[in-house]
Amino acid sequence: MSSVTQLKPFLEPRSIAVVGANPNSGEQAFNVVENLAQCGYQGKVYPVNPNYKEILGRECYPSVKEIPGDVDLAIIVTPRAIVSGIVKQCGEKGIKAAIVVGQGFSDAADEEGKRVQQQLVEVARKGGVRILGPNTVGSANAFINFSAAFLKQTDIRKLPVAVVCQSGLFFGTVGRARLLGKGLDLGNSCDIDVAEAMEYFAEDPQVKVIVLHIEGIRDGKRFREVARRVVKKKPVIALKTGRSERSARAAQSHTGSLVGKDEVWDAVFKQCGIIRADNIDELGDLVRAFSYLPTMAGRGIGVVTASGGIGIMTLDACAKYNLEVVELSPETVRRLNAMSPVWYKASNPLDIWPLIINSPRPFGETLRMAMTEVLRDPGVNAIVVFAGAWFEGFKPLITDVMKETADAFPNKPIAWCPYDGWLFNIHSRDLADKLEEAARAAVFSIPDDAVRALARLAEYSDLRNITP
Amino acid sequence: MSSVTQLKPFLEPRSIAVVGANPNSGEQAFNVVENLAQCGYQGKVYPVNPNYKEILGRECYPSVKEIPGDVDLAIIVTPRAIVSGIVKQCGEKGIKAAIVVGQGFSDAADEEGKRVQQQLVEVARKGGVRILGPNTVGSANAFINFSAAFLKQTDIRKLPVAVVCQSGLFFGTVGRARLLGKGLDLGNSCDIDVAEAMEYFAEDPQVKVIVLHIEGIRDGKRFREVARRVVKKKPVIALKTGRSERSARAAQSHTGSLVGKDEVWDAVFKQCGIIRADNIDELGDLVRAFSYLPTMAGRGIGVVTASGGIGIMTLDACAKYNLEVVELSPETVRRLNAMSPVWYKASNPLDIWPLIINSPRPFGETLRMAMTEVLRDPGVNAIVVFAGAWFEGFKPLITDVMKETADAFPNKPIAWCPYDGWLFNIHSRDLADKLEEAARAAVFSIPDDAVRALARLAEYSDLRNITP
Repeated sequence: MSSVTQLKPFLEPRSIAVVGANPNSGEQAFNVVENLAQCGYQGKVYPVNPNYKEILGRECYPSVKEIPGDVDLAIIVTPRAIVSGIVKQCGEKGIKAAIVVGQGFSDAADEEGKRVQQQLVEVARKGGVRILGPNTVGSANAFINFSAAFLKQTDIRKLPVAVVCQSGLFFGTVGRARLLGKGLDLGNSCDIDVAEAMEYFAEDPQVKVIVLHIEGIRDGKRFREVARRVVKKKPVIALKTGRSERSARAAQSHTGSLVGKDEVWDAVFKQCGIIRADNIDELGDLVRAFSYLPTMAGRGIGVVTASGGIGIMTLDACAKYNLEVVELSPETVRRLNAMSPVWYKASNPLDIWPLIINSPRPFGETLRMAMTEVLRDPGVNAIVVFAGAWFEGFKPLITDVMKETADAFPNKPIAWCPYDGWLFNIHSRDLADKLEEAARAAVFSIPDDAVRALARLAEYSDLRNITP
Repeated sequence: MSSVTQLKPFLEPRSIAVVGANPNSGEQAFNVVENLAQCGYQGKVYPVNPNYKEILGRECYPSVKEIPGDVDLAIIVTPRAIVSGIVKQCGEKGIKAAIVVGQGFSDAADEEGKRVQQQLVEVARKGGVRILGPNTVGSANAFINFSAAFLKQTDIRKLPVAVVCQSGLFFGTVGRARLLGKGLDLGNSCDIDVAEAMEYFAEDPQVKVIVLHIEGIRDGKRFREVARRVVKKKPVIALKTGRSERSARAAQSHTGSLVGKDEVWDAVFKQCGIIRADNIDELGDLVRAFSYLPTMAGRGIGVVTASGGIGIMTLDACAKYNLEVVELSPETVRRLNAMSPVWYKASNPLDIWPLIINSPRPFGETLRMAMTEVLRDPGVNAIVVFAGAWFEGFKPLITDVMKETADAFPNKPIAWCPYDGWLFNIHSRDLADKLEEAARAAVFSIPDDAVRALARLAEYSDLRNITP
């Protein structure tokens, strides 16, 4: 497949030329050469700039043609006026992939922007150079410690998530979304487009989930064709912005791409089996669910909660998102009642506070027993847990309870909403990261979010079962 | 007003009897006497339990009647069977306020639960004792370091927010909501109800915003009457749960209260001018907006963003929530263009990245100038800012930029969505807390949330202007 071989240098480069490199150092120098080193990138890096002999301890070349070795990828950080000339030289040197970082092309307010972008496309095509951008932070691959970004990359982790976006935004952490993994920022998308990028990541064995951030695309027909194929292999989650007429116009001027009515997009996503997120936080939640949780065998939900009030909210959310909070089997109820005070009758949602008060066991042990009984129920396909590590002496550790319970029920997703100080507690976030990276549970802010994500997981499981 | 004098002992107790106190210490002892001491409560605390002479270094009394001094409030933590007898003694001792913590009353699955609650109500009425609960964590007031909760209270701060709830949940931090302030957990609400609690906080000068968490109420007519009066004094934000038929049934069994159809509640809230939150995270956002931001003089929004992609999402959100991203005046555009590269034309949303790249100034300074220009525009009533402290050497500090800009424009709300590592960065959260406590800006996860909160703020400003 051509997209696989042609896009590979953007994601798996063995050697990189940074054209327009500068010798400045520090956070506001936006120095790609320095950032590559800080990322821990192990391939060859060749700075290119006729004004310097050396940059940050590396030999600097006057042009790409002077570089002695082979170059997989050029990252061009020069002003727009000289980009086409550089791309021409890339072609002559045999460099097949170039990232054009600079702004002021079809994203610009002036006519000159459109002209230089058109010129760039022509020169690249003639020279056999594929272009990512312009107006892009480029590409990244945490698995080889590589990021082309001109901002220091602190957040890339070896997540099984590929991001195809039209904004550098998603190379960082934003709201609840910390996605990379691997990434292609298409920017103005003058050459490489969403469909081709999606096709590439469909074949990448390190990628389990594909995320699309779309402002607009050029070739809707091809997008649909590719998407239909890809979703059978991997879940594709999309955040489509530019939904109103006015924001669509703004999207057009942001990256110069074509846009369409939001209802049309809704229909397209549905036809293709793409999961649509409404906003960045939902996107983060869905990626978490699809990266860490097993598929769901049905729509039956068990709720284990340290708050009766939360149980009711979880019921509300399940009604909204069409999941079923199942009646527990008589056997499950019998076992749970045996752990409870006389006046309490176990049901779903299961309020575990009466069990805690009634129990001589440490809280973690009671939680583990309650989760186990509910997970064991044949009608339950996934559980939502609302509980927190309130006590310093919480034993066993709440993350151990989650992990061990998940190990015992590997086919039933566990969505955990930690109670108390969660979002404000870096220690808890660290624990959750470890838990999620061990692929044992997904962690959400509130049950509404957990239920929404589980509903999408159930829909995708249905889709995979139905589609031939 | 009777509610003010009668509820005061629950919120401003000078002396407390803890009936059923135990001598156990530590996190899982659920010891109210110990928690009161750890909170830093300065009033008198009398443990009551016939089985002990001393509890945690305090003299322990066999019954409330043996306590030598006056007692404002009894916190009863005994099993349900003996609660009525204790309340009777409270009446005889002249204690006018009692919190009944225990479960197993109208919340229980058995008939005995309903019977003991009925008996409790009768005894209390006869003895002139007001009851909070049963099935409650009680009351709290951060301004006097008081919490009746049997779980250690780590999160109460002197926030101008009063919470009236039917779940102890909101005495802690849950999702994005950290609310107390002051609080009354109504539990089964056998005596004190939502209307009376709301009326009390309407008169409390330390309270600026009232939060209601409602599962069901008994007297809808009185609720509406009181609410109509209260919203003219202070914003009232409600989270009504038990929205589906099934969850409404569960709500009924959780606290034994009456419930109604969700659409009816929607209409009631609208009629009364109560602001409805859909979930806990939205509740937290709205409380933040109403606590920290000035009112809005109109619906004109300015957007200052370090990401063009976010600008488009903010436009989407404004279209959804009926706020207007205004065209900037020619004067504002002229000033901003003077700071920009030639190919860039300033508009709203304002992408500040071209300004940053073009500028010799430190990033913080560019941000301040951009915010100032947009805030100065006569059509702009509030701004949404998307920017983060990416650099360790960010100068001036981003919180200082926010604070100083807010000082310069005290009548225009600033909603800040910090970019990069936000929710996962305890340092940033600390900075945001300081910023918010100085009442200078409100901090949100993503622009969608910021816009939603600003829209509610604008609606409430309208309401205050219209209602006589």
